[in-house]
Amino acid sequence: MTPRYPILTVAGAGLLGASIGLAAKVKGIAGEVRGVGRRQETLDKALDRGAIDHGTLDLAEGCEGADLVVLCTPAAQVAQQLDIVRDRIKPTTLVTDAASTKAAICAHAAKTWPAPSRFVGAHPMAGSEKFGPDCAKADLFNGAYCIVCPDDPNSDAAKDAVRFWEAIGCTVITMDALQHDEAVARTSHVPHIVASALVNLLDNNEALRPMIGLGFKDTTRIASGRAELWRDICLTNAEPIARALEIFESQCADVRKAIQSGDAEGLLQFFEYARATRDGLFGP
Amino acid sequence: MTPRYPILTVAGAGLLGASIGLAAKVKGIAGEVRGVGRRQETLDKALDRGAIDHGTLDLAEGCEGADLVVLCTPAAQVAQQLDIVRDRIKPTTLVTDAASTKAAICAHAAKTWPAPSRFVGAHPMAGSEKFGPDCAKADLFNGAYCIVCPDDPNSDAAKDAVRFWEAIGCTVITMDALQHDEAVARTSHVPHIVASALVNLLDNNEALRPMIGLGFKDTTRIASGRAELWRDICLTNAEPIARALEIFESQCADVRKAIQSGDAEGLLQFFEYARATRDGLFGP
Repeated sequence: MTPRYPILTVAGAGLLGASIGLAAKVKGIAGEVRGVGRRQETLDKALDRGAIDHGTLDLAEGCEGADLVVLCTPAAQVAQQLDIVRDRIKPTTLVTDAASTKAAICAHAAKTWPAPSRFVGAHPMAGSEKFGPDCAKADLFNGAYCIVCPDDPNSDAAKDAVRFWEAIGCTVITMDALQHDEAVARTSHVPHIVASALVNLLDNNEALRPMIGLGFKDTTRIASGRAELWRDICLTNAEPIARALEIFESQCADVRKAIQSGDAEGLLQFFEYARATRDGLFGP
Repeated sequence: MTPRYPILTVAGAGLLGASIGLAAKVKGIAGEVRGVGRRQETLDKALDRGAIDHGTLDLAEGCEGADLVVLCTPAAQVAQQLDIVRDRIKPTTLVTDAASTKAAICAHAAKTWPAPSRFVGAHPMAGSEKFGPDCAKADLFNGAYCIVCPDDPNSDAAKDAVRFWEAIGCTVITMDALQHDEAVARTSHVPHIVASALVNLLDNNEALRPMIGLGFKDTTRIASGRAELWRDICLTNAEPIARALEIFESQCADVRKAIQSGDAEGLLQFFEYARATRDGLFGP
């Protein structure tokens, strides 16, 4: 059964927040959708798109009386917003978020929210390098995985959060926040850093342009993402990313040494293992 | 004016060789197209596609009497093939290749071919992670850059090679072989190694699968390439790749240190520089 929330507040009216607003309306999850933004221009676009019914620049005002609050702002801002939301909501209000890193946020809530906490951290895997309410769509979450990281998976809040993200269109997987952060460091954060580093390796040298092909274009697509977002992801998931990046650096150094020593068999194994693994994930 | 070669021999009847055969026929560049392969099965497929008129497993036989020979085999095999071709061709026969690395091949020909050499190395930038004659198409080269690396850009052979690659559909750029190899190390070879290393960083861990999104898929697409081909590219362009990879490793280490020390401004600059550079190359 579709959960129903008379008043839904999305904080952050960008791609994720506006898409949640659209999906909540289309799927009958929310009565009224309120948008909280930092800039009136973004709220106006979200209003134009019909993603929100009302907009405000003030988070405290926006979540007053809300039945569900979804924080869709960059990871570094969520802890601070939780402090504001905590003191304004009803005892029954469900609060969740959509930030790409979870351990720091969930630890902050566990420490500062009254038990049993009505905050349940989540990470819907439905972003893209696009951003802003103009790119929002009601089906953004359809078929996407959402990782939900509750302190207690058997709590009412955890069950409500799972139901909400499923109703929005996601396939929900419950996971420990630290385990989530270690995983996305490898599957998302290090790949993003690496894509950006590959672009910077060109040194913006015009003479290289004819040698830049479709392979380079695809490999670096995610480097077009918003710099502030990725700075915040790095800062809020520092240890798992640094650990994974160090392993990655040493794997690159191993390949380099194989190249320098002419280790044909080692190089073949390296490329073949990668090819087989990737074809296993996505097909050949 | 379209150059005309009564007999064209392509050595290697895979994606590139078969596409050259198709393009040469469609564009009226060749009368008869002969294919030389290592496996009869590949030749049969190329025959079925109409990419070649005759197939042989013997390179010496295949280039007997040819007016143009294009070597489309992996980089590591080209030098050895040049030794065979050199002693079978007519004095007027033009020989070129399509391998991804140029310095080792061009140096070998400069040392072993009689001057003025009728071999001119080339690298059409039109590969993909697909391979085999089934994927061949006559318009594979249309609009693609081809880097041509002649010893003497004013020689007849150099001019003939440029004319041939232009007739096939390419935009030709003439460049020193060493300069070419340094450039593609950064634009193609290191990105490929890095994409493969990102796949291997997953450790084939099934639990990570839900966290693998479209970003990872695009970033690692080229890791589905053929392992033998990439081993050979690494072995025939070892020094430029090792140099570029070492710079890349140290850039990753710099980002890691910025993450570990919480250097928000340094991280923002790193991501923003990459975003601006990439958007400059491909648009936002």
